[in-house]
Order: sequence, then structure tokens, then C-alpha cells
Amino acid sequence: MRIDVLDHGFVELVDHMGDDTSVVRAARICHASQPGDEERDRQLIEFLMKNRHETPFEHVTFTFHIKCPIFVARQWMRHRIASYNELSGRYSEYEDEFYVPGKDRLDEKSIEKIEKTYRLAYETYQELIASGVRREIARMVLPVALYTQFVWTVNARSLMNFLSLRADSHAQWEMQQYALAVAQIFKSICPKSYEAFVRYTYRGDLLKG
Amino acid sequence: MRIDVLDHGFVELVDHMGDDTSVVRAARICHASQPGDEERDRQLIEFLMKNRHETPFEHVTFTFHIKCPIFVARQWMRHRIASYNELSGRYSEYEDEFYVPGKDRLDEKSIEKIEKTYRLAYETYQELIASGVRREIARMVLPVALYTQFVWTVNARSLMNFLSLRADSHAQWEMQQYALAVAQIFKSICPKSYEAFVRYTYRGDLLKG
Amino acid sequence: MRIDVLDHGFVELVDHMGDDTSVVRAARICHASQPGDEERDRQLIEFLMKNRHETPFEHVTFTFHIKCPIFVARQWMRHRIASYNELSGRYSEYEDEFYVPGKDRLDEKSIEKIEKTYRLAYETYQELIASGVRREIARMVLPVALYTQFVWTVNARSLMNFLSLRADSHAQWEMQQYALAVAQIFKSICPKSYEAFVRYTYRGDLLKG
Amino acid sequence: MRIDVLDHGFVELVDHMGDDTSVVRAARICHASQPGDEERDRQLIEFLMKNRHETPFEHVTFTFHIKCPIFVARQWMRHRIASYNELSGRYSEYEDEFYVPGKDRLDEKSIEKIEKTYRLAYETYQELIASGVRREIARMVLPVALYTQFVWTVNARSLMNFLSLRADSHAQWEMQQYALAVAQIFKSICPKSYEAFVRYTYRGDLLKG
Repeated sequence: MRIDVLDHGFVELVDHMGDDTSVVRAARICHASQPGDEERDRQLIEFLMKNRHETPFEHVTFTFHIKCPIFVARQWMRHRIASYNELSGRYSEYEDEFYVPGKDRLDEKSIEKIEKTYRLAYETYQELIASGVRREIARMVLPVALYTQFVWTVNARSLMNFLSLRADSHAQWEMQQYALAVAQIFKSICPKSYEAFVRYTYRGDLLKG
Repeated sequence: MRIDVLDHGFVELVDHMGDDTSVVRAARICHASQPGDEERDRQLIEFLMKNRHETPFEHVTFTFHIKCPIFVARQWMRHRIASYNELSGRYSEYEDEFYVPGKDRLDEKSIEKIEKTYRLAYETYQELIASGVRREIARMVLPVALYTQFVWTVNARSLMNFLSLRADSHAQWEMQQYALAVAQIFKSICPKSYEAFVRYTYRGDLLKG
Repeated sequence: MRIDVLDHGFVELVDHMGDDTSVVRAARICHASQPGDEERDRQLIEFLMKNRHETPFEHVTFTFHIKCPIFVARQWMRHRIASYNELSGRYSEYEDEFYVPGKDRLDEKSIEKIEKTYRLAYETYQELIASGVRREIARMVLPVALYTQFVWTVNARSLMNFLSLRADSHAQWEMQQYALAVAQIFKSICPKSYEAFVRYTYRGDLLKG
Repeated sequence: MRIDVLDHGFVELVDHMGDDTSVVRAARICHASQPGDEERDRQLIEFLMKNRHETPFEHVTFTFHIKCPIFVARQWMRHRIASYNELSGRYSEYEDEFYVPGKDRLDEKSIEKIEKTYRLAYETYQELIASGVRREIARMVLPVALYTQFVWTVNARSLMNFLSLRADSHAQWEMQQYALAVAQIFKSICPKSYEAFVRYTYRGDLLKG
């Protein structure tokens, strides 16, 4: 499952462990209770969410492949309860891919200026490498709109916290687009948890209504 | 996959996400390198282990169901980079199951004394509950040899750290038995990582040779 | 600063780093803004709390010395974003100290039964040690009401999360008493943060009104 | 205590909690042992380090104010067991400060090219802002050599892990300079821990003899 985001980016679900039933199983061991039917599982998940019993949601994990601009990755990686492996500009050469806001978001003259600056920066980057400068030095001129890629492994509890903060109109618009894609994938794997989350503990606004 | 441990305990693999190839995939994105064959994957994993590039191992996760004495669970839960949901003595009544060391580990007279103490404690527990005392109060008399159960979700990096400390002759013997069971399951899911781990970064002694 | 809790326990503040001004300093760097007066600091702290900007509260840290029953310590140590060093029953012999509920909480007959069980368990413990059984085996008979001690280092953000869950009438009564002591000490060091916390983000009930 | 690093950066110790004696105190509680003299404290710290008993070092905490290029901050913030508050390019305007490698590290022609690219990027940034583009969009053109600032709170254990990886010749040279400054400050506050760390557990090479 892969969702395109912005002009060159995406959010792709690479792997996952468990779903709503993993949450239920973890919660049941606490109370030594027996497996229930669909409806009782839903009620248990709602009870957990309402009463902030958040640990059972840690037993569902996701691995995503993300492609996004560096300034988005910088905000993303502030979420510390997760695992990251990112493309390294020390070991590989960056491709010529930079985020350019759409014409619905910015006037044409500004877009032209931005594109020109990207072009010059990337030319300088290539000239420096061609003249023997190390990649780790040459990349210093590249703007934070440059696209990077990373693998993100996160559990459902931490993912929900990410959504509370990033699927929200206070987050930067570009970040919101990624958060909405993550929300959509989370919803498809854990529909009961997603529904209860949005109803009871989600603190943002974009997923409401 | 379930391994019996001690007189009433076990370690059971309930679910897992990924294996050696997940480690390789996460490492490859850092260097923008291409998928390799079996042998090159093994070499990459060895390289990571030798050079302490430990983050790619965080993208493999495991969920275990554990049954063990409370004194073992207390040592276990000091490992903070993991998720736990434990049977609660506030919400459910404990069964009459306590760890008794085997005759190869303790003389018969000591075993008798221990069993007698367990018996009396459990009788008191039941009498208190019968007379209307709340479970959370009644359980105070129960010894730390009482069996408890919990769900443990952990990534491969944190699991290897657990093995370094607990699959080691400095750990308590009872704890060692659990760590050996965890090691066996880890080995069956991630054979290349296990082999490289024991060779290059494992700091304990029981898994050597 | 030390507060006695239950019959033999206590919460003692051993050391701390920073206070309300550390929160303000960390928040100001985000906005490149200048130091304010007392009143503007209070407003900034209220703004952070109200809008769930919780990271600035991580720059205040506390080290406590805690003495409590094992069943309380077990609940406490489930809070993973903190540091713990606990007295080890493998390396030192436990003293004869067990938590006994007060007469306002339990009828006299139950108390007698409980005390008798403790006495017998401790006698068995001593006999086993006297006969050469290792401390780590002998302690298995000791009940979870036994007093233990530990050092707890925690930042203000994690401490507030602890209070939301433990200074609450859903927590076990004995745990509540410890949480109330922690709250009192936190309030004395960070009065502005404490006030804003209770008003805006605290999810428990005992610190209200 | 403040150490200048690179052309515009620095590492400044803003606050700290505890020192070598805090480590000793936390370790002593585990063994219920008594305070020792200077020499026995040193031996205890060496014992802990040699045997990888790392938790007692978590009870010492430091708050630093850091100023460094974004590409250095990106590597820094991958260290997740720590707290960060960074200057936000969404809420404040960046100053015209970019890292330029010294003439001992790069030929003059490359330096000129780099400086020209910085200048053009910053001009575009200012033009965009002047024409009403939001700061969060305008900053996209700024290169990763731009200086940022952040508050970093970290405990001694996590700080030592940072030094193992970053005070090492495999780290980028610019990162190394920051790590060396952090090492110097750590050494001044916790001389015994520093000495034992470099001798027994440090995995890098720059701090050795």
C-alpha cells in the first residue's frame, strides 16, 4: 500500500505486525479474560482509548518507507519513540529532486525564484563533486527542500501520538499531507482502533468529521 | 513456537514482523544500494554488527507471551525499550502456582520449607478474599515466586541487548533459562543476525561455543 | 525534602536540575524570543501546557530516593521514561519490613493474619540463608509487601505523566499516597508548571480543587 | 562553560545535575553499601564501567545550548534518548549564518563557489519573505549548512554513547569537533567517570591516549 504525497514523495507500508486483535489480546491478559466476538472487541478497544490505557496499542507495529523533503523529515524525526534509517548524503549522491510548492499555494514568480535557487545549488553540488570535493562537504549547499528517504518503524501508540500533532492544522501544510497518508494506512489495518482514537484521544482537527 | 521453562513457565512467540531481510532492507536505504543475494546479505549483516550499526536491527519486532515467577518478571521489566502488558492482581485472582527449585538445585528439606510457606501464603490469600478483602490488598502476602504472565513486544536490537545481559552466567539461573529460550526463538527467525550477534557484539557467555 | 509515606516508606528529593525558568528558557529558544518577567513566564508556561507543547518540560530533572513495598515498585517501574537503580535481593539481605494496612483500612483479624504470614515468610527466609541457601533463592518466599528502595531520576514531563495516572482514584490507594508526595515536591520546585499542569493537562482527580 | 566550535558555532553547558558522586550513590543503593572515600569511589566507578553496569550513570544529567549547522543537528538528533528544543524556522527568521569550511580543509575556488551559493540562497529567502511568502515556505531554499540552535538535555549514559559514535574518526569531521567539545565538558564535571569510560567502554578513537 503506497500513497503519493507532494510532487515527488510517498508513504509506503512495507510491513506490519498485528492489528486490532493484537490490542485486544494484550488487554485481555491484564484481566485474564477470554476472547470475545467482534462487537465485544470493539467495546474493549473503546474502553481502553477512553480510559487512556495506551500500552496495549504498543503491540502493533508498522514499517513504512517514506520519501519527503528534508524539512519534513526534520520534523518527523523529532518523534523519538520510533526507529529510523535514512539515506545518507555522506555515502550516496543526492538526485536532483526538490519540493516545489504548487501553483495553488504560491504565485508563479516566487516559484520561479525558488526553482532557480534549487538549480544553482544543485549545479554547485555537482561541480564540487566533479572537482573532487567529498560528498559530505559538497551537500552543504543543498537546500532543505531536497528529497530524502527513510525507513520508519513505529508502534500504533506512537503513531497515534504522531497523528495528534501532525494531522492538525497547526502543523506545516506539507507535513499534514504526510500525516494524512499515514492516517489512511493506519485506518486500513486497525479500523476499530482508528475509529476509537479519533473519537476519544485524538487531539488534532484534520481527522475529525 | 513455545518453549517450556522452569516448572510452570514458558516463552511463546505470538507474532513477529520481519527477519534478516528487513535488517538488510533498512541498511540498504542508507547507502542507496541494491538488493543482494543470500551471501551478500550475510556479509552486510556481519558488517553492521562488527561496526555497531545497530539501528537496522530495530525494524524486526517480536511479540512473546511469557509466563514466569514475579522475581524474574521484575528483572525482565527493567528492560525499558520494549512494551509490556501484565496480568493484574488487582483485577483477577492469582492461581496457586509458585516456582519451586528442582532437587538438582536445592536440598529436600529447604524445598519442603519453601513449599510450606507458599501453601500458607496462598491459604491466607484465599481466606482474605473469602472474608471480603479486596484482591489488591489480599495479594500482598503472596511471595515473589508466584507465577505471573505478560505480553512482551520488543525489537531485535533491544532483544539482543537483553540476551547480552541475561543469557550470561552473572544473571540469576532462573532468568538465564528464559533468556536461553528467547535466544533459541530469535535464532530461528533471524539466523544470520543471530550468528553475527554472537560472534561480534554479544557480551555474555552462555551462547558462545 | 523528605515525605514519609505508609508505615515505613518515604519519598525523598535527593537532587534536581532546573525549575520553571528552565522550561521558559527551552521554549524561548524555539521562538528566538527574549527573557520575560515573572508574569510573562507564567503566561508562556500556561500557553505551552494548554497547547501540549510538552518537550520544554523535559529540561527539568529530579532524582528521588524512594522506599516502598515491592507491589508499589512494580507499578512504578512500568513508567519507562525514567532511570532506576534498586536495592538487589541477590546482593544484600532484606530487612524485616513489610507493609501492613492501617486499622482504618482493614479489620483487625485480617491484619493479624497478614502479619502472621509475613512473620512466617521472613523466618523461612532467615532459616534458608542460615542453612546456606543463596539469597537469590531464599528471597523467593518473601511477599510482595516487602519494602524495597530505589533511586528514581525522571524529567518533569515524565513525572507529570506519572501523576496523571497515579495521583488518581483509579490507582491503588497505596500508590496514590506516593504520587501525592511526588506531587507536593514537584509543586515546591516548579510552582508555575505545577499550577498550569493541574489546570490544563492533568488527567487524574486527586490534585484537583 | 562554553567552547567555540567551527566558524560560528558553540557548545555551552547551561546546567547540570550531579557528578561522579551521584553515580556512586545510585550504585550503592543496589548493594546497600556505605559511602566510601575518594579512592573507593573511583574503584566502584571502574567496576561499573568494566562490567557494563550502565544504569547508575543515568542519574547525572546535563543541559547544553548548541549552535551548529543543520547537517550536524540532523546527525545529533538521531540520538533519541535525550531532549531537544530547537529554533524554529516557522516562527522566527533565520540569520545570515552558514558554515564555510576553512582554507585548511578546502581549496579557495570551492570555498568561493560555496559562499556564492549561500549568498544567493539567502537573498532569495529574503526576497520571498519581503514579497509576503510565509517563513516556513521561504526557508525551503536555505542550504543545510545554515546555523541552527537547540537546547540538549541528556544523561551521562546517553552522552557517553554519543561520544562513542561521534568522537570517532568515522564521524564527519565537523561533527567530531562538537563531540570533542562535549567530551571536554563531560570530563570537567565527571572526571572519574570520564577516565573509566575512555579506558573501558568507549568504542571510538579520538579520545584515546
